[in-house]
This record gives sequence, C-alpha cells and structure tokens, in this order.
Amino acid sequence: MTSTQQNALRVGMVGYAFMGAMHSHAWRTAPRFFDLPLQPELAVLAGRDQAAVKTAAGKLGWRDTETDWRALVERDDVDLIDICTPGDTHADIAIAALEAGKHVLCEKPLANSVEEAERMAAAARAAEANGVFAMCGFSYRRTPALTLARRLVEQGRLGRIRHIRAQYLQDWLTDENAPMTWRLDKSKSGSGALGDIGAHSIDAAQYVTGLPIQGVSGLLTTFVHERPLGGTRVGLGGSGASDGGTGTVTVDDAAIFSARFEGGAIGVFEATRFATGRKNNMRLEVNGSLGSLAFDFENMNSLEFYDATQPPETAGFSTINVTESVHPYTGNWWPAGHGLGYEHGFTHQVVDLVQAIADGTTPSPSFDEALRVQKVLHAIEQSAAAESGWQHV
Amino acid sequence: MTSTQQNALRVGMVGYAFMGAMHSHAWRTAPRFFDLPLQPELAVLAGRDQAAVKTAAGKLGWRDTETDWRALVERDDVDLIDICTPGDTHADIAIAALEAGKHVLCEKPLANSVEEAERMAAAARAAEANGVFAMCGFSYRRTPALTLARRLVEQGRLGRIRHIRAQYLQDWLTDENAPMTWRLDKSKSGSGALGDIGAHSIDAAQYVTGLPIQGVSGLLTTFVHERPLGGTRVGLGGSGASDGGTGTVTVDDAAIFSARFEGGAIGVFEATRFATGRKNNMRLEVNGSLGSLAFDFENMNSLEFYDATQPPETAGFSTINVTESVHPYTGNWWPAGHGLGYEHGFTHQVVDLVQAIADGTTPSPSFDEALRVQKVLHAIEQSAAAESGWQHV
Amino acid sequence: MTSTQQNALRVGMVGYAFMGAMHSHAWRTAPRFFDLPLQPELAVLAGRDQAAVKTAAGKLGWRDTETDWRALVERDDVDLIDICTPGDTHADIAIAALEAGKHVLCEKPLANSVEEAERMAAAARAAEANGVFAMCGFSYRRTPALTLARRLVEQGRLGRIRHIRAQYLQDWLTDENAPMTWRLDKSKSGSGALGDIGAHSIDAAQYVTGLPIQGVSGLLTTFVHERPLGGTRVGLGGSGASDGGTGTVTVDDAAIFSARFEGGAIGVFEATRFATGRKNNMRLEVNGSLGSLAFDFENMNSLEFYDATQPPETAGFSTINVTESVHPYTGNWWPAGHGLGYEHGFTHQVVDLVQAIADGTTPSPSFDEALRVQKVLHAIEQSAAAESGWQHV
Amino acid sequence: MTSTQQNALRVGMVGYAFMGAMHSHAWRTAPRFFDLPLQPELAVLAGRDQAAVKTAAGKLGWRDTETDWRALVERDDVDLIDICTPGDTHADIAIAALEAGKHVLCEKPLANSVEEAERMAAAARAAEANGVFAMCGFSYRRTPALTLARRLVEQGRLGRIRHIRAQYLQDWLTDENAPMTWRLDKSKSGSGALGDIGAHSIDAAQYVTGLPIQGVSGLLTTFVHERPLGGTRVGLGGSGASDGGTGTVTVDDAAIFSARFEGGAIGVFEATRFATGRKNNMRLEVNGSLGSLAFDFENMNSLEFYDATQPPETAGFSTINVTESVHPYTGNWWPAGHGLGYEHGFTHQVVDLVQAIADGTTPSPSFDEALRVQKVLHAIEQSAAAESGWQHV
Repeated sequence: MTSTQQNALRVGMVGYAFMGAMHSHAWRTAPRFFDLPLQPELAVLAGRDQAAVKTAAGKLGWRDTETDWRALVERDDVDLIDICTPGDTHADIAIAALEAGKHVLCEKPLANSVEEAERMAAAARAAEANGVFAMCGFSYRRTPALTLARRLVEQGRLGRIRHIRAQYLQDWLTDENAPMTWRLDKSKSGSGALGDIGAHSIDAAQYVTGLPIQGVSGLLTTFVHERPLGGTRVGLGGSGASDGGTGTVTVDDAAIFSARFEGGAIGVFEATRFATGRKNNMRLEVNGSLGSLAFDFENMNSLEFYDATQPPETAGFSTINVTESVHPYTGNWWPAGHGLGYEHGFTHQVVDLVQAIADGTTPSPSFDEALRVQKVLHAIEQSAAAESGWQHV
Repeated sequence: MTSTQQNALRVGMVGYAFMGAMHSHAWRTAPRFFDLPLQPELAVLAGRDQAAVKTAAGKLGWRDTETDWRALVERDDVDLIDICTPGDTHADIAIAALEAGKHVLCEKPLANSVEEAERMAAAARAAEANGVFAMCGFSYRRTPALTLARRLVEQGRLGRIRHIRAQYLQDWLTDENAPMTWRLDKSKSGSGALGDIGAHSIDAAQYVTGLPIQGVSGLLTTFVHERPLGGTRVGLGGSGASDGGTGTVTVDDAAIFSARFEGGAIGVFEATRFATGRKNNMRLEVNGSLGSLAFDFENMNSLEFYDATQPPETAGFSTINVTESVHPYTGNWWPAGHGLGYEHGFTHQVVDLVQAIADGTTPSPSFDEALRVQKVLHAIEQSAAAESGWQHV
Repeated sequence: MTSTQQNALRVGMVGYAFMGAMHSHAWRTAPRFFDLPLQPELAVLAGRDQAAVKTAAGKLGWRDTETDWRALVERDDVDLIDICTPGDTHADIAIAALEAGKHVLCEKPLANSVEEAERMAAAARAAEANGVFAMCGFSYRRTPALTLARRLVEQGRLGRIRHIRAQYLQDWLTDENAPMTWRLDKSKSGSGALGDIGAHSIDAAQYVTGLPIQGVSGLLTTFVHERPLGGTRVGLGGSGASDGGTGTVTVDDAAIFSARFEGGAIGVFEATRFATGRKNNMRLEVNGSLGSLAFDFENMNSLEFYDATQPPETAGFSTINVTESVHPYTGNWWPAGHGLGYEHGFTHQVVDLVQAIADGTTPSPSFDEALRVQKVLHAIEQSAAAESGWQHV
Repeated sequence: MTSTQQNALRVGMVGYAFMGAMHSHAWRTAPRFFDLPLQPELAVLAGRDQAAVKTAAGKLGWRDTETDWRALVERDDVDLIDICTPGDTHADIAIAALEAGKHVLCEKPLANSVEEAERMAAAARAAEANGVFAMCGFSYRRTPALTLARRLVEQGRLGRIRHIRAQYLQDWLTDENAPMTWRLDKSKSGSGALGDIGAHSIDAAQYVTGLPIQGVSGLLTTFVHERPLGGTRVGLGGSGASDGGTGTVTVDDAAIFSARFEGGAIGVFEATRFATGRKNNMRLEVNGSLGSLAFDFENMNSLEFYDATQPPETAGFSTINVTESVHPYTGNWWPAGHGLGYEHGFTHQVVDLVQAIADGTTPSPSFDEALRVQKVLHAIEQSAAAESGWQHV
C-alpha cells in the first residue's frame, strides 16, 4: 500500500471508540477547509479485535488495519501515530512510535503517572532532534473562543491577572446504577474526573493565562463506590465486561482544588461527573486588572469579554460571537454567526500539527507542556491524600 | 388638615388598586432617596366605597379620604391629583383637576379615545399657562436601562436608526377560564393588549429613538370571546361582579403591527396576554448604522449594547449592568450590582415630576406626547379594521 | 468512471461556492456517522469555469468535473443532482435533472417566482411516479432543536397554538459600502432578505407548527439603494464583476410581515441584513395553550420549552440541551453536551434524503412544500406593493 | 415621645450609612405591603455625630435621635435595636440591648470573632427565656428565589445533595488606587471579602441545603497592600480619615475555600472584590441526585431548577420567574413578572422578624445560626494560616 499523493502525511491510529471516530473526522475534514502543507491520509487503523477493527476502518474510512500497535509503529508506510486509547497504554505506544521515527498525536491526559509522562517527554525531546514531533491532544485550546481568549491575554487586554475560576461539570454518573467502565478503574484511566476532565481545565487555564500553576490544595471524593458490571455507555468508553456483579470504583468522582499561579493569581477548580443537569459544562473565567474573560463550552461559539478601560457608562461583559473571519480558524468555515461544534477543535488541532511538522517547529501542547499538567494532577492527588495541605508543583 | 411641612406637595390620589398601591409607594419613597425641591405628602385618597377607601388609606398611608373625585379636586389642601383609575374616567378627572389648578399625574394610556386625549392635551396646554403641569405615567421610560438607552441614542452611539422591534408579552389570559375583568371590557379599558401594554411599547420606542411613528399596519385578534364572570385577578384589576355566567370580551387579546418612523426606520410590534410562559416580557431592540440596543424587562437591570465602532475581534453585545453611579437614577440607590425592581420606575417618575413642577418646566411625557401614542393606537385599530391596510398617523 | 461501491448513490453537484462546500461536507460526512442504505459518492462537480471547477473539485473531494450542467444531468454515472446555484437557475436545472431520471436536492428558496416553483413541483410529482425524488434544502428543519420542537408540537405538548414570532436577523449589509453582489440583484436572487432568510423562517414556522399560513400583510424596505461594484463577500456569494462604479440594489434589505395560520394562530415575522450585531440570529417562538417553545440559532444546541402543565411553583422555560441520545440525530454524534454546529443540519438533510430515496417515500420538504413557501413569499410582496393590505395565500 | 399606634414595635437603629438607609426603607415599607401583627415605627436613630445623625434622621424618616447607643438601648420607648454598624461594635451593642430587654436585629457577620459571637449567642439564648428575640441579618435568605430554593430542597426535589458551588464576586477594589476604608481594616471589619461577602455565601449554602459545613480548607490573598487614605466609596462604608498618605490593608482581598458538608456533599466557595466586571455576582449552585438549583443575584428574580425526574427528551434547567403569587413573599408585591430588587430581601427580613416576635418563636437566622457561620469563617482563616490544611468546624 502506498500513498496516493505527494506530500502525503500517512496516519496510523490506535483505538476507534468515541475519540477514534472524532480523530478520523478531523483528519478527513482538515484538508477540505484548510490549505495544508502535507495531505493527511487515513492509512492504517489498529485495534486488538480483528473483526471489530475492520468494521471500524470501513465505517471511519481507513485504508488498512492492524491488530497490534507494535506492528503499526513499525510500518514504513505510516508517518504519524495517533493514539486514542486509554491512558495506561499511552507511554508504551508513544515512546515506541517516536523511537521508530513517527510523529505522534496522543490523547490527553498524557499518561497515568508523572513517571510515564516524564519518559514520554524525554522521548519527545530526543525525537525532535531528528525532526520527529509529538503533540498532546488538549483539543479545547483550539476552540476558537479559547484561542481568542489566549490572544487577548497576550495582547495585554486583561492587565495583571488575579483570578482564574474553572469548572468542568458533567452528570453522566449521577445515576448510582450507571455501569462500571474503564474510566472508573484507576489501573486503566489513572484517575477519574480529575484526569479526564479536570486535566482540560488545568491545561486551558495555563494556556489562556500563560501562567504556570505553582502550588495546589486538593480534595477528591468518590460518591458511589460500587457499580454494576457489564454496561456500556455509548461514546465515553464502556467496558467490555458483562458478567453481572459489581465493580469497585477506584477513581475520584469529583475533584476540587485551589491553585496559586506564577505572578500571584489564584485559581479555583472543580471537576465532576455528578453535576446533575450539566452535560459538558466546561467553564473558564479569568479576571485581570484591566479586564475579564468568561467562557462556557455549552455556548462554545461565544466569548465574554469585559474591558475595564471602556467608559463606565457602557462597560459590560460583551458576548463576542467568535465566528468572524478575523477570529481564529473561523474564517475557513462558514459565514459569521453560523456556529461551529465540538469537533472543530479536533480539526484545528490536526491543522496546527500538520503545519508544525511541515515547518519543523515544536507543536503545542508539546509533551513537556502536557507533563506539566501531569505534575499538577499529581500534586492535587498528593494534597488530597494529605488533608488538603499545600503542595508545590 | 394642613401640611406638616414647608415646600409640601400635597397629593390627592384617585384609585387604590394595584396602581394606587404602587403610586403610594413611589410618593412615600422618593423623598427618602432623592433630594426633592418639594416634599410630597400622601394627603387624600379618593374612592367610591367609603369603607374600602378608608381601609386602603390606612394600609397605604394616606392622611384623609374622599368618596367623590369631584370633591377631591376642589380641595384647597391638595396640590396634585394622581389618577390611577381605569381609562374611561381619565379625561373627566384630569380636565377637572387641571381646571381647578391642580397638577396631574395620569396613568397610561392617557384616554380611551383620541377625542378624549385631545381634550386632555388641550386642558394641559391651557393649565401650563398658569404654572400647572400634567404628566402621563409611562413609567417604563424611567427604568434606568431605558433611560440609558435614550441617552446613548441622543449621543449618536447608534448612528442612523433602521430597525425597532418591540414585544410586550404576558400570559395571564392563556387560561380560557381566567375570569372577565374590566380590562377586557372595551367600554372601561378602551382596548385590550393594544392599549394596556402595546401603548408602553409605542411610548418606549418613540422615546428611546426620538423618532415619531408616521404610519402603521395592524392586526388585532381575540382568542377567547366569552369568560366567566365574578373572578378577580389579584393585582391587575379584577372586576367586582360575581353573579356567575359569562361576560363577552370586547377587546383585543393580541395586537401585532408594523410601523414606519420618521427618517425611514421600520418597526415591528407585538402585544399579547397569551404568550404562555412570558410573564412581563417587555422587550425593545433598536438597530442603527453604528450600534444596537436590546432591553428585556425580565432582566430590567441590564441593557445590551452593541458598538459597531469597536474592532471586529472584540465587538459583541455588552451587557451593561445599569446600576453604577454614572447611570441614570441608580446612584441614589444601592451600590453597583444590587439591582432595582419594577417600582423604581414609578419612584423616578415622581422625582422628575416634582422637579419639573418646582422648575416650572413641562414634564415629560406630557399630555401632548401621550396624545401622540393615542393616535398611533387609533391608527392601528383603523388599519386592523381595514384588512391591515396602511394608516398614516 | 464507475462507482467504487455497491449501493452507491452517485452525486453530481452544480455550484461550489459557500453552499457547495457545505453540501460536499455533508455528503462526505453522512456515511461516517450514520448507517445509510445507499453510499453517497462525490462523483461530479459542475461549474462554468473549467479551471475553477477543477480546483474546487480537488479541494472539496469530487472525482470528476463538468463545465455545463446540461452535460452533468445527462451522465449515466450520476444518480442525484445537487443544485447549489443562485435561484434564477434552479428551475431549469431541476426540471432537466428530474426529466433525466435523477433525484434532486435543490437549495432554497425553490425558485425566484411562483410560476417557476409550480413547474418544478409539477416535474417532481411526475418524476415520483418513476421512483425519482426531489427535496428542497430548508436545512434548518434538521437542526436537532427544531426537529425536537416539531416533535413536541406533534405530541400535543403545546396545545392549541396561538402565536408564532420569527426573526431572522443578520448585519452584513449594515455597512453602506459593503459591495454589490448577486444576492442584491433581483434578476439573480428573486428577492432580498425576504427570500434568502425570511424563507427559512416561513418554512420553519410552518414545519414546527404543522400549520399553513393562510394570509399575510407585508412591508419591504431597501435602506441602501446603490452599492460599489466589484467586491466579494467571502462565503455569501460575491459577484465576479469588478469594474468599479456602483450597482443598484433591486431587492429588499428588510422584510416584516404578519400572518394568520390555519386554526387561528397569528404570526409576526422579520427578516433583515441590517440588524447591527446580529450575525445569524434566526429565532422562532411558538406559544400554545399548554406550552411554548423558543429557539435561537445563535444558541443552536438548545431549545427552550415552557410546559404550562407543570405546577406554577416550578414552571419556567427549560433550556433543553438538545444533545442527548434520545434527541433527533444527536445520538449519532458526540456524547451529551458536546455541541453540534451549523453544518450538521446539512448532513442530517442528506441522511434523510438518502433514506427516503432508498425507501421510495417522498422526502420532506418536497417541492410541493417549498412551493407553498414560495406562494407565501409572493403574497408578502403583493401586500407590500399594495400598502400592506391583506393577501390570502 | 410615645408611640402613635397600638401594637407598635418601636425601633431604635444604630448606624445610618448604606445599611441604615436600607433598613429604614425596610421598616417603612413592610407594613404597607404585608399584614403585620405589630406595627414598626421608626422611633430613634443613633449615631455619634449629632448634626449628622439629625440630618440622617430627617432624610430617612426617624422621629428622634441619640448620639450614644448606650442611651438608646436604655430608652423605655424603644422595643427593638437594629444594629447597622461595623462588626467591631456588634457584640457590645447587641448584648447590652438584649440585657435591656430589647429585641435585636444585627447586621452580618454577627461579630468579628468567634469569642464575641459566642457571647452574643449566649446573650440571645438568655434573652429568649424572657420573650426577647435576636436575629442576624443574612438578608439574602429572603430573596424569593433563594427562599424557593430552600423550599424545593425541603420537599426533596434535589434528592441526596452532592455538590455546592458558591461564588460572591465584586470588583470595587480592582482599581489599585481605590481608597482605604474601614472595610479593609481588620480591627474594624474582622476580615475582608471572607467576612463581608463570603459570609453570605456560607449562610446561603447552609440555609438552602439544610446541611452544616463540617470542615474546610482555605486560601486567603491580599492583592493590594497599601491604599490611599482619605477617600470615600459611596455606599459601602468610606472611612472618615482624609490626611493623605496610605493605609495598610490588613484583610483578605479574596478568599477561596473547599468544604465538606454533613452527609458527604462537597462545596467550593470563592469571595472576592477583584473580579473585574462582576458587580454583585452572588451565585449559588446545588447538585443533588434528583435535581439541581442555580441562582445568580445579578438575575435575582429567577431560579434555575433542573428536575432529573423529567423525561430526558425535555429535561433542562428551567428558569423559574420567581414572581408568582405561589412563590415566597412575591404575592404581596406586583403582578407576575414585575420583578423585585435588592431591598425586598430586607423588607422580608423585617416581616418575618416582626411575625416571630409576635408569635414568640425564635427568628431565623438566630444568633446561634450566625455563630455557626462565624465558626466556619474562623476555620477558613485557621486553614489559610496553616497552608490550607484541613480544619474541622
């Protein structure tokens, strides 16, 4: 099997559940709306179950399949490995791929431990010397409203930043009879709400403000300790097991933590899957001496901006409809006001990754940036285990 | 009975239902938060039923009572007559009061017909020659957000105005078994949703834009033609009758109309009491070449303002929290962000009326301004009766 | 060139501007997320300029090209013609395609006149006898929130419908120096805001309520009569001319109209491209005796629903996050709360069209339904030309 | 001076700044809209500066004045002492008043230390044996939407409560040159944002959920350490000093803390005066197994309620317009949809206090309840001083 195009970027992907379908869409769609220096091809899809992976490849549009990721990373006709599996496999796949000279896009969180993340970051740094690049999939950064938020902070529109408040609220575990899944098993997922969705908030907060978190105090809670085995939640990673009985939830159901950022800003964070009625309520607010920003993913095409330099008579939070041609990414899509959806962040991620590879520059978030998030997650867990005592990151 | 204060403004009020209670509150509260050149006194309350008016006077804080408004307007110890009765009595009371040398505050709509309104406006013009003033109670003008809206238009912040859209939506007649009241009897109320709430929208639209309506096309509808007699709706003027049977609704349940304003702007209006779920949803939006304004009374402490002269990257509708000391009226109340309620418009109305009387200047809205609203109402009814054909005002 | 798949549905598309890119995306994406009985293929793209159409085909992913739509509709290897051109060409292309035995998807509004629309509807009825189907692209119907709205009305959740209010507000012509385009030329576009966006509101109102409009009173206005030639507005159909000077706007800039629906409901509509700050603000509200619905495209993943049968203590407009697996279409996409964008309505349109073709059932909106919209548009224009006098549809 | 009414409740008030004006309004207004068993009279106003207190008494409507609160609490013609002074004086005045047999209404926070609060609570318990009652002025409880929130929790509509999130965001200290006031002086105010506004959030959270806070982890920050002397901020307690130079801020500018509630719920709180653009943004959200509530004081007439027992197709956060006659307090005011303002909570507070006194029942929040808030405040400060380590309350 060979590429059908010059300047092709032949992608091999591991995993084909919810995230795999999303990444397939991104690779397929990106070149239709953006001018890319390399043309992505959906080359090879890998998964352990041969029948299942073949069906998925047909549905999602992949040319070929493998049943062993080790075989995939060795293939000559693949240029990039896209990792869409649970966190416990990230380190092995990513490091092998980088050592085999493949670029890597790895879903977040980077790994299930700081130790793994450190090895991955080291591998990425080593690979870069050979022109091989790695990126971690914190896709929310590429929601145009959050990219614009970053841009406004960079322009100094917020002044000195004092407050960050971030919430990531879902409710899919509210029902005590919702089934056990790999996401509730610490050995697979590393952590619960903290790593799954809190990691997004940490990355977004550091990205938008440009300020690293220096210390944290955390509290983790598990509300429901036993759940029925055998169920599947469409989309978010149902377990394959189905023999009845219950499984023990070994991760946090909810996490709350406070943080100090470089420069003196303080932050308050919350991540939970028990916020009844909140479906995917990822909110971020930043207050600075000159202005404020507020974002809510349930209204993802908008950014609220308060400009304190405006005259008091007309100052107010402006709802910027982030769909104008002057806004990040949106000029490549529809006319103003015709909103984007969740998947566009993934397409933009691919666009920027392909450009970075072509340019030979480090894509962002790099594995080093993702490692920093991992260290924050770890410090929160340490603090929570020590009665919320302060932990430096 | 004599005034207890120098510089007193002794008020006599006719009517003590919902509007009477509200006006009493305004007269009582205004001097506590504003520095007034004349001190209002709740002197005499008039109503036909002696026992009821005495009870109301005690409850609402009036010193004395009368059972005949004619006696009230002749009293030497009353300086101003406040008319809070149904529309069919406005003309007689107001003209008599003005002729007796009393200032007048008259609830809206000014009258039940253009003919009455013209006589009232003539009486007001004649009285003004003697330093006696009249004002019509379009209280929404004094909601700080709408006063600010007017100010922004005056400052030219909207540029050339092209669109007005106004909705006044209530739902208290949605239930087909809601009782008959005087508000549904054309002989008492003059019209239905059109005059009761549509009049507010017309006044607000002309006030905020500063542009008179020049022509209209209207459509009136009555959804429920017969209603049970005998009921009372707390607050909005229940009838006293209670002998069973049904009464015939002789007014419009809903009114929609389009309008052309001086200068070329067009407007679309709707007033109804059948908008299920909309409790007092008085909305006004104005679009101009340089900006837009949007107001919704259900969020009355806010004004939305779009400033098209801002850079496109950050342009958006700003939610101005109209509670700052720089905003109209609000500096006399609470700190910023501690919102006002419905009644404050009435208090502000009294404040401005007292100031105008002390200054010897015509208060606004004058009877002439209210007459203009009456003419628009009339033209809408004419158009509706002529298959929506255009009517010049 | 032959199909690469069994059960293929080979698509030929005419036009490749904004709508062409959107339709290409829909055809490409639909089979990846939905199980379709026929597999769409992006077979042939037609456009007059050979170089341009070839470039577009490469970018958008079409296998082959034609420079004459007449050649396209005659090709044996095409099963369906997708018409994405200005309205003046719809009738000729659609009728030729149907007569050639091709299914047709035609962008809205169906045509530029009732006469054309009637011929098209007749052709569609004739074709259906041969198992050939036609659909008009009122894509907003397939926004999940509006599909849910229709479902709730069908379930009787609103009771007897009394009010419809619909606004379609854009602002891309606010600037008096925005250039002339084919959309402002009546010979190409048929009408202005009325046909371009007002048509969506008419279709949505009739679709959601299930009630046809029986009469209208309308008012049309043109605010800016001359515009500079030669400009291009990305996305919404820039003209190719560029020789300086000005062109005369021959369409309406804004349209407002009132309507009576079968059964006694009344409606108020507004469509404009001069609502400064409103980017694509397509709103629809319906009030019935038992409940109300409100939709705003700028928050397209939500539907507001007021259920008047709830106890008054907790009744209120509920913001339904229309992203659950029980909601229309959304179960095929992301987990709850991960919103969709503008393009998904187009993908859903393709999904339903393919299913209808496979089932041999009439797709909706049929050309007959679209003809009904055309008649409403015509009646509004007639009324506007007759001083807003009532026009039966 | 004697009472002019039977069944009078003669009020003596200490302090006449912002809170004094507000309480005066409440005492004046309550009997006009509610049927009270005792009739409040604005009898005596106390303040140290004779001229100023006389002016204030005239403006606010008090019959008599005192310049020493000790004289006030000894007067025979006063039945209740209303304490509107800074926190450092609460204990002395309240205890003296209770010992003199006067009922007490004391502004929040109850005191500047747990020790003071404990003495006050003991005095209140002792006084109650003699039919003398004390209440602490956590007025937000009587915002109708929050009273309704409590009612829904009591009805079991939320099920088992798992999450509380509370924010109280203001921005009046954002400007680094905003002047020093007594509120920034720990010796006067006890604490900063924590006690001033965080106390409201703590009370509201415990009140609405009915669950006491059992432990906390806190973080306090001061962003601006020196501020110019001599300024006055209208409304919120300007200092009298004016000799130039700067004063040292000795309180927290912002406080964030996490909490565990009885029964396992966790909470996250934030209080700040540096949230640029947030004027009085007091938000509270509660998530339970069966439903959720959300409140935002900037939209104080609404309560958001998510009922998870509704069918998923139509479940959503309902915006309850808390102005119906079935809602707490609102039936005594305007018709539905005609919203209330900030002051109504104070009027309701007076209504309930007067009723409790007449009934001989303990008013709520009692001093014991307020003491509990004080203990939470203290535990937060202890935790903050110990690197955020957990503190039991």
